[in-house]
Amino acid sequence: MFEFQLEATSGAARAGLLTLPHGPVETPVFMPVGTQATVRTLSPRDLVTVGARLVLANTYHLHVRPGEDVIATLGGLHRFMGWEGPLLTDSGGFQVFSLDGFRRVDEDGVEFQSHVDGARRRLTPERATDIQWVLDADVAMAFDHVVPGGADEAREGQTLRAADRPTVRQTLWPILQGGTHQTLRAEGLQRILEMGSWTGLAVGGLAVGEPKAAMYETLEALAPRLPATLPRYLMGVGFPEDLVAAVERGMDLFDCVAPTRNGRNGTAFTPDGPVNIRNAAHRADPRPLDSSCDCETCTTFSRGYLRHLFVAEELLGLRLLSLHNVRYLIRLAAQMRAAIRAGHFPRWAADWRRRYTQPG
Amino acid sequence: MFEFQLEATSGAARAGLLTLPHGPVETPVFMPVGTQATVRTLSPRDLVTVGARLVLANTYHLHVRPGEDVIATLGGLHRFMGWEGPLLTDSGGFQVFSLDGFRRVDEDGVEFQSHVDGARRRLTPERATDIQWVLDADVAMAFDHVVPGGADEAREGQTLRAADRPTVRQTLWPILQGGTHQTLRAEGLQRILEMGSWTGLAVGGLAVGEPKAAMYETLEALAPRLPATLPRYLMGVGFPEDLVAAVERGMDLFDCVAPTRNGRNGTAFTPDGPVNIRNAAHRADPRPLDSSCDCETCTTFSRGYLRHLFVAEELLGLRLLSLHNVRYLIRLAAQMRAAIRAGHFPRWAADWRRRYTQPG
Repeated sequence: MFEFQLEATSGAARAGLLTLPHGPVETPVFMPVGTQATVRTLSPRDLVTVGARLVLANTYHLHVRPGEDVIATLGGLHRFMGWEGPLLTDSGGFQVFSLDGFRRVDEDGVEFQSHVDGARRRLTPERATDIQWVLDADVAMAFDHVVPGGADEAREGQTLRAADRPTVRQTLWPILQGGTHQTLRAEGLQRILEMGSWTGLAVGGLAVGEPKAAMYETLEALAPRLPATLPRYLMGVGFPEDLVAAVERGMDLFDCVAPTRNGRNGTAFTPDGPVNIRNAAHRADPRPLDSSCDCETCTTFSRGYLRHLFVAEELLGLRLLSLHNVRYLIRLAAQMRAAIRAGHFPRWAADWRRRYTQPG
Repeated sequence: MFEFQLEATSGAARAGLLTLPHGPVETPVFMPVGTQATVRTLSPRDLVTVGARLVLANTYHLHVRPGEDVIATLGGLHRFMGWEGPLLTDSGGFQVFSLDGFRRVDEDGVEFQSHVDGARRRLTPERATDIQWVLDADVAMAFDHVVPGGADEAREGQTLRAADRPTVRQTLWPILQGGTHQTLRAEGLQRILEMGSWTGLAVGGLAVGEPKAAMYETLEALAPRLPATLPRYLMGVGFPEDLVAAVERGMDLFDCVAPTRNGRNGTAFTPDGPVNIRNAAHRADPRPLDSSCDCETCTTFSRGYLRHLFVAEELLGLRLLSLHNVRYLIRLAAQMRAAIRAGHFPRWAADWRRRYTQPG
């Protein structure tokens, strides 16, 4: 269980197979984000239909509302949200440090204000791991402190939990921080690897507003130092061009709210770049959003109808574009996997980029 | 085509079969309302799944936005909204008279202000029929004037169109007005029946705010005068108790936004009466909304999860309750049909009412 089998490489890109309690996950893989135990506008049946395998939920949000006790009473997170496939829970570190409101950090943890009711709450690495144990996702994340150089905050809960809990149904991955400082990243990585053997490793603190070139450089410097045997989860990425760039640089797993958030804003990913469906040019356009896509949105509806839904402020529009965008990223990951296994990923990536970024 | 076969009666209740170009429709039947060419939050695939047969769309709204020209360019209303089953378009009369803003009625039609851009537009019975012909639903409705006693407004377009258009793909039903005035209803009905042979008849101007007892009395007085051979469409009904009461009084077809609007407000129909899912009592409730229901919502999710979606303002909640409520009314109609065919509808209705209206 929790084994990662590296199946093929092409350039620095990797194709692998991660075995989790709720099923196998082929990499590269894009994880749709179900922050509050729902991928916004989509049902679990939709997620199966679009080929989602690993879905992310957020410990901070679920702790604050409805509370892990409620979710446990209702049978754990899988049962609660009706998702039978693999799940990963983020630790809540990122949210605690990025949401507005009071917070106070000390050596052991962080005190913060709930964004729901303003109540003071406290999270420590141990507590974040406890909550995630109750939530019962396949993969839990260590509680991280997202500040450049803060890579050592994540440790305690990890060693603690590796010792006193069975690993049959949940594993814990550490999060490597360090911003774009390569020295800090290298030091953090060394400490994490010294702590024992892991089943996976996350790279945090990127895609948080730094220039894209800085993110790419950081990944390029980091990738050769990472153990080849561990799956590498680049947190919070991303947009299609970032997904391709990160796979090129040896990353395996990704999550981002971009497909659903952009979908709700009326932006659809296509092989020719993003399309704004509100544009008047689509008013009577009989073409699908993406003629190469097999999703319900693209096989059923015209751009003209989708534009009508957005202009008329119909909720179905938000759902149909979210559905397509998630399917788009899942297909993109599958296409990359195929190109890696066929041994021509660099050529595939160059072709993809030429088409995706062309004007118009 | 457009034939209505009366299959069984039980008391005044009727079970029938209506044959339309896009398929047969068993009655009693509840039509989900897709005002703007979408049943709010639901996809056409959802509609198939919940057993919807006849779906309603609105001429006024579609004329104003996106315009019937756009819909025609995109292949007609069925293709536009991705719905392959039978469709009925309301004429727009009700909307023109009930929406806010300027309107001026004369002998030939009505001038009004678009709720979208404030532009002045004009609808006449001929124009409303023309627009519906372009939209290409199976059943079009005559342009009606919703004021008590205004039952004669609906005629011109009807006789006009019956003469000069093929009836292969679309039929036109008149709307009987007259409020709760039985004399006006009787006169209006006589004039409508004198105008020629129809394939169906709608009863308008009820469920518009009058006391329920007045609606029931009006239907009781009206039903014996209606030709048994025509399907009877009671417009804008309804809530479960009204659907049962109207079937008891000989009505066959129904439409209402109640299941989707109530669903979006967090109210679910169940055999034991409405449930407000936001109620704190459902916080950790593992039961489905309605344990007798076969819909995706009831077979997948707990009340606790559904409450979480509403409290956390997740869009999936609106969709899941809308889906259940539409399925509830479609099953209710199917249960009534079965009771009528089995010859014990009055007993079924009494049992149903006893359970539905009991407190708690």
